[in-house]
Amino acid sequence: QDVTESRFGKGLFNVIAKDSSYSANFTVRMQSLFTSDWGIPEAGDWEDAQSNLMIRRARLKLGGFAYSPKLKYKLQLGLANRDISGASPYTSNAPRYILDALVAWNFYENFELWVGQTKLPGNREQLISSGSLETVDRSLVNSYFNLGREMGVQLHHSTNLGGNFLLKEAVSVSQGEGRNITTGNLGGHQYMGRLELLPFGDFDAYSGADLDREETPKLAIGLSYEFNNDAVKTRSNAGSYMVNDEGFFETDITTFFLDAMFKYRGFSLMGEYADRRADDAFARNSDGSLTGDAVNIGKGYNLQAGYVFGKDWQVVGRYTNIDLDDQISEAIENQYTLALSKYIAKHKLKIQTDLSYTDLDLGLDDNLLYRLQLEIQF
Amino acid sequence: QDVTESRFGKGLFNVIAKDSSYSANFTVRMQSLFTSDWGIPEAGDWEDAQSNLMIRRARLKLGGFAYSPKLKYKLQLGLANRDISGASPYTSNAPRYILDALVAWNFYENFELWVGQTKLPGNREQLISSGSLETVDRSLVNSYFNLGREMGVQLHHSTNLGGNFLLKEAVSVSQGEGRNITTGNLGGHQYMGRLELLPFGDFDAYSGADLDREETPKLAIGLSYEFNNDAVKTRSNAGSYMVNDEGFFETDITTFFLDAMFKYRGFSLMGEYADRRADDAFARNSDGSLTGDAVNIGKGYNLQAGYVFGKDWQVVGRYTNIDLDDQISEAIENQYTLALSKYIAKHKLKIQTDLSYTDLDLGLDDNLLYRLQLEIQF
Amino acid sequence: QDVTESRFGKGLFNVIAKDSSYSANFTVRMQSLFTSDWGIPEAGDWEDAQSNLMIRRARLKLGGFAYSPKLKYKLQLGLANRDISGASPYTSNAPRYILDALVAWNFYENFELWVGQTKLPGNREQLISSGSLETVDRSLVNSYFNLGREMGVQLHHSTNLGGNFLLKEAVSVSQGEGRNITTGNLGGHQYMGRLELLPFGDFDAYSGADLDREETPKLAIGLSYEFNNDAVKTRSNAGSYMVNDEGFFETDITTFFLDAMFKYRGFSLMGEYADRRADDAFARNSDGSLTGDAVNIGKGYNLQAGYVFGKDWQVVGRYTNIDLDDQISEAIENQYTLALSKYIAKHKLKIQTDLSYTDLDLGLDDNLLYRLQLEIQF
Repeated sequence: QDVTESRFGKGLFNVIAKDSSYSANFTVRMQSLFTSDWGIPEAGDWEDAQSNLMIRRARLKLGGFAYSPKLKYKLQLGLANRDISGASPYTSNAPRYILDALVAWNFYENFELWVGQTKLPGNREQLISSGSLETVDRSLVNSYFNLGREMGVQLHHSTNLGGNFLLKEAVSVSQGEGRNITTGNLGGHQYMGRLELLPFGDFDAYSGADLDREETPKLAIGLSYEFNNDAVKTRSNAGSYMVNDEGFFETDITTFFLDAMFKYRGFSLMGEYADRRADDAFARNSDGSLTGDAVNIGKGYNLQAGYVFGKDWQVVGRYTNIDLDDQISEAIENQYTLALSKYIAKHKLKIQTDLSYTDLDLGLDDNLLYRLQLEIQF
Repeated sequence: QDVTESRFGKGLFNVIAKDSSYSANFTVRMQSLFTSDWGIPEAGDWEDAQSNLMIRRARLKLGGFAYSPKLKYKLQLGLANRDISGASPYTSNAPRYILDALVAWNFYENFELWVGQTKLPGNREQLISSGSLETVDRSLVNSYFNLGREMGVQLHHSTNLGGNFLLKEAVSVSQGEGRNITTGNLGGHQYMGRLELLPFGDFDAYSGADLDREETPKLAIGLSYEFNNDAVKTRSNAGSYMVNDEGFFETDITTFFLDAMFKYRGFSLMGEYADRRADDAFARNSDGSLTGDAVNIGKGYNLQAGYVFGKDWQVVGRYTNIDLDDQISEAIENQYTLALSKYIAKHKLKIQTDLSYTDLDLGLDDNLLYRLQLEIQF
Repeated sequence: QDVTESRFGKGLFNVIAKDSSYSANFTVRMQSLFTSDWGIPEAGDWEDAQSNLMIRRARLKLGGFAYSPKLKYKLQLGLANRDISGASPYTSNAPRYILDALVAWNFYENFELWVGQTKLPGNREQLISSGSLETVDRSLVNSYFNLGREMGVQLHHSTNLGGNFLLKEAVSVSQGEGRNITTGNLGGHQYMGRLELLPFGDFDAYSGADLDREETPKLAIGLSYEFNNDAVKTRSNAGSYMVNDEGFFETDITTFFLDAMFKYRGFSLMGEYADRRADDAFARNSDGSLTGDAVNIGKGYNLQAGYVFGKDWQVVGRYTNIDLDDQISEAIENQYTLALSKYIAKHKLKIQTDLSYTDLDLGLDDNLLYRLQLEIQF
C-alpha cells in the first residue's frame, strides 16, 4: 500500500508528471436513490405507492492536462443503467457509455477551443453537475428544455470588465442530434451561444447550496440562445426523432434560456426561464399529413431558494412551472418541492431528500413524489 | 515509471491518503475459458462435441474507505459479454454493467449498514467470489437457487459467543427483482436473513480449497432464509418475469439454504442444501388460466471435498443433486464432477480444469462437460 | 496531488512493484473525427455533402507483467459507440466491450504462448494500432479482408538468422467467428500463421510514418495465411453469419496476405496484398437453393508512401484497389488518398486529415471523402 497526498474529494488518483508533461485526476461517483410516488386523482383516493430503488448515477471521470498545461482533457463515463440507456440504431445499437470526451486548448490569452463531446453552453441547471445539486435531481424545466451533451466545437472566453465585473462568453457549433450519435448529421447543424455576467466577482456559480457562505453578495446572470437548423428531434437535439415518409421531418428550432444564481452567507437563490420555438412544430409527411410527432414548444420557469444552517444542513424550496404551447399540451404543470440535505463532506458525501407535489390542471391526476438519495464522490 | 509497495494479488493500485481521509484498492480479473461438451443419448452414439472459447468473466473492482475508516465503499464492474448480458426493458435496454455499487457504514460497534447493490446474504457458494472457487464454476444448486445481487439495504453484525465461537448475522430488504433494474419495484419487497456459526474461530470460510492449510479444524455453518412478497419472477428475484394479462403474476416465494464449510490441513469440505417454495407455483391470468410460467420450486444439494497436495495442486470431487417439484419437472438431475487445479499464486493465478457427467433420468439425454480455465487476479 | 515519474505518452499510471511481482501501465486514447462526403454520379451534379462528427475511438488499455516478468497481460476496452457496436444474440445481446483480454507466457527462450482474445497474426495494417496510422484510418483492403480479433491461443517465436536478419513466426488456433462471441464455436476452427522477415534489423515496423528517421534502410516483409475450416461468416471470421434452413451454411475459407513496410530517413512505404478464397462462395440451403449470402472472395492491394518533413509534418499518398470475384461484384473499386498529418507529440498527440476519391466502374456513383481527426493518447 502506498501513501498518497490526495484527499477524499480531490480524486482517487491525482498526479502531476515530474517533467510537467501531463496531469491526471481520476474520480468516481455513485448515487443510491430510493423513490416512492403516489398518483392523486382529482376525485377519489390516492393510488398505491410505486417505489423504486436504484443506482441512479455512477460515473468515472478522468481529467487533467496533456503535453502542455494549455491543453486540457476530460473523459467521463456512465456506468449506471440510467446513465448509459438510449441505445438505438443512431448509436450503433450500443449503450451511450461516453458522457464527455473532450480536449480544450487555451490557444491565446483567455480563449479556449473545445473539441469533442461535452455539455453545450446551455442552461445553468444543466451545467451544474448532477453531483452538485441542492435537490435530489434537476427541475422539470431542465427535463423539458435542456440541450444536454453534443459532439462539436466550442469557443470559450472570459473578460474582466473592470473591478470584479466578469463576462464569460461561449459559442458552439455541433451536430444537433444529441450525444453518442454515430449515424452522422441529419438536417443542419446546431449553433449556440451563452453570455454570463458576474457583476460582483467570480464565485462557484455552478453548484447548488452556498456551502462556502459567501461573505459578500455574489451574482451570476446567464443568457443562452440556441438555433438548430433543420432539426429532426422533438426537443431540438433531444427527445425522439421525427420520422416521416421521406426520412425525417426537418424544422428550425430555437431555445432561449435566462438564468441566475445568487449566493450570500449561506443563502442561495437560483432562477431559470426557458422558451422553445419552432418554424413548424408539427411533423408532417411529404403530402402535408401529420405524422403525430410535434416539437415541444412552450415556456417554463424554475425558482428555488435555500439556506444552509449549522453543520451543513440545508433546506430548499422550489417552484417550477411548465406551460407548453396550447397546441402541444393544454395542461399547465406546477411543481412544488421541499428539500432537505445533510452535507457531510460538502457535495462529496451527502444525503438528500425531497418531497414534490405536481399539480396538473384540466382534471388530470396529480402526483406526490418522495426521494431519498445518498451520494459519494471521490 | 514509479515504484509501488503493492504486490501482485494485492491490487494494481493500492493507496491510503496521508490524512487518512480515504483509501483505494483497484483490482482487475480475467478468466479465459475453454469448454467442450457432448450430448449422450440413453441409446445410440455420443453426439458431436460442442466447443466454446471465451472470456468468461473480466471485472474491475474498486474498494476502500471514504471520509472515515468507518465508511467503506465498493464498486465492481463487469466487462465480459457474459458478465453484462441481460439487457431488457427492465434495465433501460442497457447492459448490466454494474455488479456492486455499495456503501457500508459501521455506525455502531459491530453493526454495519449497507446501502446499494451487492450480493444478498444468501447461500455460501454464491457468496464465495467466482474467483475463489475450487472448481471452474459454481454447482447446479447455485444455478437453480441462488439469489444473486440486488439493490437494497442490509444490516450486518457479528458476535463473539465466548472463546473462538463467532456468530455472524445479516438481514436485508431489497426490491426483489434482481440487479440493475430501473423500472422500479413490482409486487412486494424481498426480505432475507442469514445466520452463520463459526464454532472454532474465524477463518477464510468464503473461498474454496484450504490453501492456508489450517492447523486446527475450522467449521462454518450457515443458514439463510428469504421471503419474496408478491414475487414476479420464476426464481424469486431471478429467472424470467411471469407476465400475464394484467401485467405480472404475483406470488409469495421463499427460499431456504443450509450450508457448511470445513477446512483442515489442506482438506476442505463444502455442503449446501436449498429448498424453494411458492404460494402458487403456476402463473395464471386473471381468469385463472395458466400462462405457462412456473416458479422453480423444489430442492437441491451439493457436496464437494478437496485436498491440496504439495506445490498447491488440488483434487476435488463434487456431487450435485437437483430435484425440482414433480409438477415442475419430473426429471431428477445428478451431476458428478472431478476437478484438478494448479494454484500458481493461490487464487490470484491458477489453472483449473474439471470434467462433469450430468445424469438425467426418464430417458433424457445425459451430458459430459469438460472445462479448462486460466484465471488471473491482481 | 502526487508527483509521478511517468511522462505524457508513457501511460497515465505506470508502476512496477518494489518486489518485482507485477507492473502496470494504464493508458487512455480518444479520437475526435469529422467527416464529410459527397456522392458523385457519373452523370449529373454532386450530391449534397453528408457530414458526421463523432468520437471515433476511445479506449482504455492496461498492460504489464504479473507474478513474473515472463507472464505478461493486456486488457483493452472500447468506450466509443463504434468501438463497442455489434451486439447480437451471438454476443449475449451485450456490447462488445472487451477488445483485448490476453495473457502471454514466455515459457521457453524466444517462445511465447498467448491465451485469450486479441488480434490474430494477420495483415500488417490490422496489426498496426489504429492510433499509430499515418492516415486517418486504415485502407479498404483492411476493411474487406482483415481478420481482426479472436479468442484463441497463439504461439509466437523470433529467430536471429545471423547479423541483423530477424525472422518472426506466429501461429494461432481460434474459434473462427470473431471477437466477444458467447454462443460457442460453429463449424470448425480457424488456423492461421504469419512469417515476418526483417533483413536489416529490427525497427518499428508496426507504426505509420518514419518519425524516428531511420538512419539506415529498414525493411519488413510479412506473409500470413489463414484457413477457416467450415466457416459460417461472409468474411471468414468477420462479416455476417450465413444463416440457412438447417442453421448455418458452412464452407472452408482461406485468406492470404503479403505485406511490407520500408522506412528510411523520414520516408516510409507500406504495401499490402490480400486474396480470399472459399470452397463454395455461395451460401445454400439443404436443397441447394441460394440463401443470398456469399463469401467475399477476391483480391485487393494497397500501396502508400509518406515523407516526414521538418517539425513532424507528413504528407502521404495512398492507392487502393479492390477487385472482388466477378461473381460477387463486377465493380472494381479504386481509391486515391492524399493525407496530411501534424505530429505534435509523435502518434501520442496529432492532427490528421485526408481526402479520398473512390472510383467505381460500371457507371456506379463515385465518392469524395474528407476527414479531419484529432488524436490523443496517454
